[in-house]
Amino acid sequence: MKKLINRPEAVVEEMIEGLVAVYPGLERLPGQTVVVRSDAAEVRDRRVALISGGGSGHEPAHAGYVGRGMLSAAVAGDVFTSPSPDAVLAAIRAVTGPPGALLIVKNYTVDRLNFGLAAEMARAEGHAVEMVIVADDVALAATAGAEHAGRRGLAGTVFVHKVAGAAAEAEASLAEVAAEAREAAAAVGTMGVALSPCTIPAAGAPGFELGGDEIELGLGIHGEQGVRRGPLEPADALVDRLLDAIIDDARGLLGRGIPIALLVNNLGATPMMELAIVARRAVVALEERGLRLERA
Amino acid sequence: MKKLINRPEAVVEEMIEGLVAVYPGLERLPGQTVVVRSDAAEVRDRRVALISGGGSGHEPAHAGYVGRGMLSAAVAGDVFTSPSPDAVLAAIRAVTGPPGALLIVKNYTVDRLNFGLAAEMARAEGHAVEMVIVADDVALAATAGAEHAGRRGLAGTVFVHKVAGAAAEAEASLAEVAAEAREAAAAVGTMGVALSPCTIPAAGAPGFELGGDEIELGLGIHGEQGVRRGPLEPADALVDRLLDAIIDDARGLLGRGIPIALLVNNLGATPMMELAIVARRAVVALEERGLRLERA
Repeated sequence: MKKLINRPEAVVEEMIEGLVAVYPGLERLPGQTVVVRSDAAEVRDRRVALISGGGSGHEPAHAGYVGRGMLSAAVAGDVFTSPSPDAVLAAIRAVTGPPGALLIVKNYTVDRLNFGLAAEMARAEGHAVEMVIVADDVALAATAGAEHAGRRGLAGTVFVHKVAGAAAEAEASLAEVAAEAREAAAAVGTMGVALSPCTIPAAGAPGFELGGDEIELGLGIHGEQGVRRGPLEPADALVDRLLDAIIDDARGLLGRGIPIALLVNNLGATPMMELAIVARRAVVALEERGLRLERA
Repeated sequence: MKKLINRPEAVVEEMIEGLVAVYPGLERLPGQTVVVRSDAAEVRDRRVALISGGGSGHEPAHAGYVGRGMLSAAVAGDVFTSPSPDAVLAAIRAVTGPPGALLIVKNYTVDRLNFGLAAEMARAEGHAVEMVIVADDVALAATAGAEHAGRRGLAGTVFVHKVAGAAAEAEASLAEVAAEAREAAAAVGTMGVALSPCTIPAAGAPGFELGGDEIELGLGIHGEQGVRRGPLEPADALVDRLLDAIIDDARGLLGRGIPIALLVNNLGATPMMELAIVARRAVVALEERGLRLERA
């Protein structure tokens, strides 16, 4: 395992220390793997707090999304491991004022459980807390069956952060922010392709194997099985496959004139040149399908 | 070779098409691998134009640095290949008005030659053109000898773009912008470590080999030989080695109270978690050495 780390068991602690050392807008909650907006105490009396989190290893999720118009706090678990209810509760206590808090949670069983328990505990303490689940994985939707707990939460969560963040920044009520977040969560679809496995620092070896010219479509962000394994294809063909699945999944929402936002991202090791080549085809493919891309 | 591309010979073209498709502030110069600010024609009468470029494969350099307060235009060559003088001249013509243009060039022989020729041709057409060379590689400084043409231009160039960009945005004269850029270029130092080789799309195979637990310090961004090959070490130890070389190189400039800007970057495939762990040690190490980090 070749990584720029010190000790595998310290990666989350040291990552958080590094983030708050270089970003003046971020602070760490003492004793917790929780990153909060430096101005959280000032704004919590007027604005709904937004809290997200999950296992580490998906950076910039989630601490990278803490800031004005986005999250109030991010709770980091160990690599690919949900944070504890206590850590989530500590985050809620730190950033929540009278307007309340919205927890934005990706659809993984333990995340739902731990964030849900924390929400219950916070409510018992008198906090107004709502939760929205993001389940944007269209790969599993296409092959839904008994073996899948449901659609996973993926990169589409970033749009939910942004939509909810804009509503919270405009000082909307908790009910309004939650409604906006749920509408956004219902409107996002994501699908990915893996060219190579990742290595969890504590494991020290790749989590699965892919052949020299093999790829996997619809793979989960923790290495969960995808929907199809096959040979490497040109980027344009892969983009078309992914977009067709996403568009098919969103049939009820799409139509001429309805603006679409496009996010092309990666899991940490895809060069920007390749992302630009992917984005090129995605823009053209959306236009070919009569869909209107809203440029930011 | 596993890459999200279509054809190796089309990567630069398609990357540029992708960039301008998703960034509304960017436009492509027709027929050229040149990306310009969309508002270049509006601002060139009042502001010095800033132009940089070089071989592709170093994204976000250089098109990613085109925009307000940064570059007016970026000229992209083939992967790891300098752009032609004609392409640079086309960029100068497109974005340069009466205040003139500053070319920011990294210290590679062919880049210096091609940008220099373009500057001469542009001057012959009546444009005021200055050139600043960035040579921030401290690895080669430490082992300077007949085999090295000189210090290479590396990531420190981003600071030169920013300093010159701020001066140009403030409508400073060409002489002033060039002086600011030269002062910035003289004050930056960079050193890196490689954990694995990269693969040029047209070559299809890694440019060099590193053993399973082997790293190389001070390697060039095109795979040029570094100053030392050795076993993988903890991130903190590697950061200390790099920082000591950078600080040693900058002895004449550093001192208590003089603010320092820190850039932690990667060449396209290092996860953000590792960059945060590196940044953590770098911040602490600067403080331990009595140096003052200026936070943005």
